[in-house]
Amino acid sequence: MADEENAYTFATTATRQVNLGLDDDGFKMWRGERLPEVTLAYESWGELSAAADNAIIIFTGLSPSAHAASSPLDPSPGWWEYMIGPGKAIDTDRFFVVCANSLGGCYGSTGPGSINPETGQCYGADFPDVTVEDIASSGYHLMRELGVGKLHAAVGSSMGGMSSIAYAMQYPGEINYVISISAATRALPLTIALRSLQREIIRSDPDWNQGRYGDDSKPLVGMSLARKLGLVSYRAADEWNSKFDRSRLPAEKLSGKRFGHEFEIENYLEYNAQKFTNSFDPNSYLYLSRTMDWFDIAEHGDSLDDGMSKLDVRRALVVGVTTDILFPPRQQREIADLMQATGTAVDYVEIDSVNGHDAFLIDDEHFSPVVKKFLDESL
Amino acid sequence: MADEENAYTFATTATRQVNLGLDDDGFKMWRGERLPEVTLAYESWGELSAAADNAIIIFTGLSPSAHAASSPLDPSPGWWEYMIGPGKAIDTDRFFVVCANSLGGCYGSTGPGSINPETGQCYGADFPDVTVEDIASSGYHLMRELGVGKLHAAVGSSMGGMSSIAYAMQYPGEINYVISISAATRALPLTIALRSLQREIIRSDPDWNQGRYGDDSKPLVGMSLARKLGLVSYRAADEWNSKFDRSRLPAEKLSGKRFGHEFEIENYLEYNAQKFTNSFDPNSYLYLSRTMDWFDIAEHGDSLDDGMSKLDVRRALVVGVTTDILFPPRQQREIADLMQATGTAVDYVEIDSVNGHDAFLIDDEHFSPVVKKFLDESL
Repeated sequence: MADEENAYTFATTATRQVNLGLDDDGFKMWRGERLPEVTLAYESWGELSAAADNAIIIFTGLSPSAHAASSPLDPSPGWWEYMIGPGKAIDTDRFFVVCANSLGGCYGSTGPGSINPETGQCYGADFPDVTVEDIASSGYHLMRELGVGKLHAAVGSSMGGMSSIAYAMQYPGEINYVISISAATRALPLTIALRSLQREIIRSDPDWNQGRYGDDSKPLVGMSLARKLGLVSYRAADEWNSKFDRSRLPAEKLSGKRFGHEFEIENYLEYNAQKFTNSFDPNSYLYLSRTMDWFDIAEHGDSLDDGMSKLDVRRALVVGVTTDILFPPRQQREIADLMQATGTAVDYVEIDSVNGHDAFLIDDEHFSPVVKKFLDESL
Repeated sequence: MADEENAYTFATTATRQVNLGLDDDGFKMWRGERLPEVTLAYESWGELSAAADNAIIIFTGLSPSAHAASSPLDPSPGWWEYMIGPGKAIDTDRFFVVCANSLGGCYGSTGPGSINPETGQCYGADFPDVTVEDIASSGYHLMRELGVGKLHAAVGSSMGGMSSIAYAMQYPGEINYVISISAATRALPLTIALRSLQREIIRSDPDWNQGRYGDDSKPLVGMSLARKLGLVSYRAADEWNSKFDRSRLPAEKLSGKRFGHEFEIENYLEYNAQKFTNSFDPNSYLYLSRTMDWFDIAEHGDSLDDGMSKLDVRRALVVGVTTDILFPPRQQREIADLMQATGTAVDYVEIDSVNGHDAFLIDDEHFSPVVKKFLDESL
């Protein structure tokens, strides 16, 4: 799957870094701390119109880089290659499309792996608490840097869907359309448990060392195990049933270790975890994973309704996937119902895909028409 | 929940140990190895009839001891207290009920923590491969020791359900009734992945040390993390939504550690994992966990149908739980359909419970009537 293969590439040839123009207090964060300066790595596709009214920001899930799609500067496929490009659902002939590596990430944006300019040391686990709201507001500042005022749309899945909604709540009147895919008004205990356990697995690796590790001493074992648990929660049983069933590894792939891997599914997880582990910063994983546990629309007001009523957009699109166990369809309907109840016009689409929470990365056939229709009608 | 609290007690006052009467070759195992001797720890309730025709064996899931129910010898509640006793669904006024700690376990039966009589050393990870079939056949030998020939019934859930079916396949004509709850004809990739990951988490703990650890140097961190993942897979989202929602820990329970626990669900998992970790042998966990990945009814013949056609029982009861994500209802229907197609009379019941895979441990209200009806009709 090309889209997955390239999801975690930091594509230097097309990626730009920009220092957000902040006042002397720096970047004020949602939970009260501050960052003296913030750099965001981003890529863009298409041209900003003269009226600066055709900009779309893509907010990512936990792990992708800014390289959402190929471009002349970097022809390698991006993590949402099928969705973004000339004539595609997010049509770069019409829209000026921007995707940033998340604040707190490790592909060129300020995060725990960055140097704190006030100490000259790497932040590590002293990086301040990052929230979905901070990711959204760093995106807001980025778009200002790029000459954009009011956004045409914010689009995102999973953590990115939360960021899109947060953008609209935090900047009412500054955005016309919102697309939220496989997100949640707030996480429920099962998914908090799954993410908490991933974080605890990383923290339990002695090499994590309270977040102080070097490039040659990363907690790779913990990262690999955590990533495998993530992958299990991102996909759906039926997809794996048809892809792997009970296929065994051929003899030459058996490690001979006691309790070693025997099934193809174990090998698949190993391969994908290793690929990820070698390119992602463990502290970024901890910080970004936790943003999804914390996010709660009710914290934007007295209640979920009150929080969601902050929205002032023309229309929203909410998309859920039938086989998503992390943020299941009922949580997507909850978002849509809440929008409707608080005065936002909303389209709700439930996609019948076998690909679980990760469907948006893979399922071109189902996702492209839904996003295309919504954006076509927005013009 | 009293049943859960006591699920892992090795209740010495009522538990008996018996050496299985084996020939000079010892205990021949399904995958070809052998054990020179096998001790099983068991408890029993009720009296064997003069005709020795009222015996029921209870096969456990991965972790319980033989203490399935209280008795005058040990009045503490057992792990299936609601189900077994005078006048209860498994009525000890009628039946002679036996429950053994599984072969490979750590509550008094021969397992990796036992001494190998041929070396005088603890088996550790040199213990031979244990399978569901071995657990079933050790149960067969135990019942012979206790004067039972043909069983009235075998009853089990999860791994125990597989063991019940294995008993009936391995000893056709030696059993009249089978009850299989939340089991599978064979495990599918998602559950293989979930169990494989638990095992890898334990193996990755440096204290596991290839299975060689002392009482004071067990891989407790790995065990705790593995158990948490197990618990997540055993329960259902809705149960936790109503029990925990997004409740936060009170300030005095916060550890102050970076990325430490903040939500009640995290504390619940911690409490339950610690309780388990302190009483269960990590190597037993590895061996017994793997039995469920390996079990495949098709290995008892040329195909699933051929394997299941080995059954020669009067009737079977297959029970599934709507919210079970580990062995979902469709896998229960598969068992029942396969029995039906291969000539076994079968009752199939799908229980609408919020308790997921663990429902049989908790949901007296739904489970007792189903088991009671089936066993009443068997007389």
